[in-house]
Amino acid sequence: MARVIVDVMLKPEIHDPQGEAVLGACHRLGFGQVSGVRQGKRFEIEIDGPAGEASLAAIAGLAGELLANPVIEDFSVHAAELPGRRHSPGSLRACG
Amino acid sequence: MARVIVDVMLKPEIHDPQGEAVLGACHRLGFGQVSGVRQGKRFEIEIDGPAGEASLAAIAGLAGELLANPVIEDFSVHAAELPGRRHSPGSLRACG
Repeated sequence: MARVIVDVMLKPEIHDPQGEAVLGACHRLGFGQVSGVRQGKRFEIEIDGPAGEASLAAIAGLAGELLANPVIEDFSVHAAELPGRRHSPGSLRACG
Repeated sequence: MARVIVDVMLKPEIHDPQGEAVLGACHRLGFGQVSGVRQGKRFEIEIDGPAGEASLAAIAGLAGELLANPVIEDFSVHAAELPGRRHSPGSLRACG
């Protein structure tokens, strides 16, 4: 059992009204240091077996077929850093 | 200028019908090795200045106030690994 993450974001040249609405809200709430927001989707996928090269390639195929619209979206696939880790509210995760 | 990522996922105990629909579709498409799917949101936030501890704490406050519903969702905040990096379709990103 392993966990694979698929991040799906609109391509940079595609207009993102959701992100723009969030940006406006940031400024209204006083977070003036925010200069841009893009909103996308994140999928946490549990797979049988290890998250090896073959599994990641299979999940990339799945992402292109099912999770993302390749016309307007890009995606990335990577093994979860800590399978089984739960997100905690407000946790800060340094990422080298 | 730096980029900060906020991942927002439903708490583990919260039912995720979107994820279950994706799981069913995975199996119908022949991806039988997938045993679970959870769907959440990903925000890419551009901020003025570096993504230091203070900036990450501010973005965590923003996430709790605006991006996530703390009653049903958890979130994590981390600096983007490569600010300015663009997602490429099908890219595989190994993550230690």
